[in-house]
Amino acid sequence: MTPMNRRIVLASRPQKAVSAENFRLEQTPLAELADGQFRVRNHYLSIDPYMRGRMNDAKSYAAPLGIGDVMIGGTVGEVVESKHPGFAVGDKVTGMFGWQDYDTSDGAGVRKIDDARVPLTAYLGVAGMPGVTAWYGLNKIIAPKPGQTVVVSAASGAVGSVVGQLAKLAGCRAVGIAGGEQKCRYVTGELGFDACVDYKAGNLYADLKAATPNGVDGYFENVGGDAFDATLSRMNPFGRIALCGMIAGYDGQPVPLKQPSIILTMRLLVQGFIVTEHLDVWPEALGELASLVAQKKLRYRECITDGLEHAPEALMGLLQGKNFGKQLVKIA
Amino acid sequence: MTPMNRRIVLASRPQKAVSAENFRLEQTPLAELADGQFRVRNHYLSIDPYMRGRMNDAKSYAAPLGIGDVMIGGTVGEVVESKHPGFAVGDKVTGMFGWQDYDTSDGAGVRKIDDARVPLTAYLGVAGMPGVTAWYGLNKIIAPKPGQTVVVSAASGAVGSVVGQLAKLAGCRAVGIAGGEQKCRYVTGELGFDACVDYKAGNLYADLKAATPNGVDGYFENVGGDAFDATLSRMNPFGRIALCGMIAGYDGQPVPLKQPSIILTMRLLVQGFIVTEHLDVWPEALGELASLVAQKKLRYRECITDGLEHAPEALMGLLQGKNFGKQLVKIA
Repeated sequence: MTPMNRRIVLASRPQKAVSAENFRLEQTPLAELADGQFRVRNHYLSIDPYMRGRMNDAKSYAAPLGIGDVMIGGTVGEVVESKHPGFAVGDKVTGMFGWQDYDTSDGAGVRKIDDARVPLTAYLGVAGMPGVTAWYGLNKIIAPKPGQTVVVSAASGAVGSVVGQLAKLAGCRAVGIAGGEQKCRYVTGELGFDACVDYKAGNLYADLKAATPNGVDGYFENVGGDAFDATLSRMNPFGRIALCGMIAGYDGQPVPLKQPSIILTMRLLVQGFIVTEHLDVWPEALGELASLVAQKKLRYRECITDGLEHAPEALMGLLQGKNFGKQLVKIA
Repeated sequence: MTPMNRRIVLASRPQKAVSAENFRLEQTPLAELADGQFRVRNHYLSIDPYMRGRMNDAKSYAAPLGIGDVMIGGTVGEVVESKHPGFAVGDKVTGMFGWQDYDTSDGAGVRKIDDARVPLTAYLGVAGMPGVTAWYGLNKIIAPKPGQTVVVSAASGAVGSVVGQLAKLAGCRAVGIAGGEQKCRYVTGELGFDACVDYKAGNLYADLKAATPNGVDGYFENVGGDAFDATLSRMNPFGRIALCGMIAGYDGQPVPLKQPSIILTMRLLVQGFIVTEHLDVWPEALGELASLVAQKKLRYRECITDGLEHAPEALMGLLQGKNFGKQLVKIA
């Protein structure tokens, strides 16, 4: 029997919210390896908000996926077969191998990882792309001084949790915004933020005001919508806003910003960014993040969905804020 | 008979739009000069959008005016009496002497000006604060490269007209947004912009799209509202937006920004700024602007209201876009 590869492809583009029929699970035989190639068995798939954007056929920062394409995604896994001199069977690797059991590679864009000090899954989160995203936005855009106040939305998530912990390590007051009491307890209790505002409690602006008595100097935006409006109203003069995600508007109509004039009156800097366009900082950031994980100075939480076939549900849940911690799918 | 000073004070704060009853004309006797002081007879008063903000009692970039305070404003005039060693009768000066016939000064914040090569009124416009505002936003925030497209709203105004002309001198495509056919003809015909979009024609987005076939790399925002929404939709990746004014929202309800997510998807920089916080660039900017005026490389237009008593109408007109060119009031 020929070994088969299971993969999930984009079956159709979502009109508004993503639904199960936008995906299709396929089985295809494994191809023979060519010289200079190796085969990876994916162990974990990372589920991230940017995937929603790739499902649209719209002008954005990356080319859209084509109908029938394997869904894009970062993975960690193991080399199971190799005709490549640089990769041996048993090597642990991370790359963009997508929503599937196996893939082949010539090594481009693949990084060998060491899971002795840092767990394999952390390379998809705190010591991977989400961690570098947090590191870049905080250090290169917000650049906070000790004693300043940094607010981050989606504070219990893969990026937000790192933003706040790095802000604390930099001597700042770290304030999170998250959905629900349980997430907020985690953000202050486990991650060590100074405060966390539960946007589901219905008093976002008043609660944020109470949590930021000295105003806000830096804002790391993962969400958009009400969180953006409320935090903008709390910004101090010369504040910096790192615009990383606006998940509130990904799955439907654009969400307006109510008082853009505050950007002027408070002389704010607002900078949108995509971490994959700043590859020059990755080695420094990854080294620092892995070291902090190994020293237990950076904590993280994972939300693992079991089975490739459940990846669509995992993405839909993420877009609705149902996950609690870095969303992963266990493939093998 | 004691010589009298006429002055216009803030009588009450506007609830929404500014109206005549927010102002009061007073007459007070001229005070005796103390040693180290001189007296200035104001010739022209500059009317600028920022004045609207000072009339509110709200958190903004400058302290609000108090009720009964003389309205703030930049002026050009002449020293008519002096007990100051550095200022002689007949010296032409510019300063913030406000909405009044006369004021006294110890010289702080006052600059002597030479009206031989550059007309006196130009020091309130193209060779003064509005000119430096244009210079700063264009050179320090937008920093355009030759061949790039720069859009500016309120393009026929004191700031906008300079932005576009400096952009042209820098080798860019300059596109204005202005209200009405007459202003647009002036912007392209007299000022030499490549194109001008008439927002009153009712096809702002389509017309702007046609005028910016290669998208927009830099946007200098003086207006907010529809102009901001339309231009944001035309921004190229890594575009820069200098946020200088949002006059559309000054006189009433905040005007939302419809699609803030474009700042993220296009990885834009948005920077609010107030030119008086960047005094370090003024000498360089003023020198360059005055030189360009003297060489007739920078053109400008003035809209002069005659008589201090008509200054309130001049401000109300400015806030409604009725002026055509730099709004001044001739005092003497």
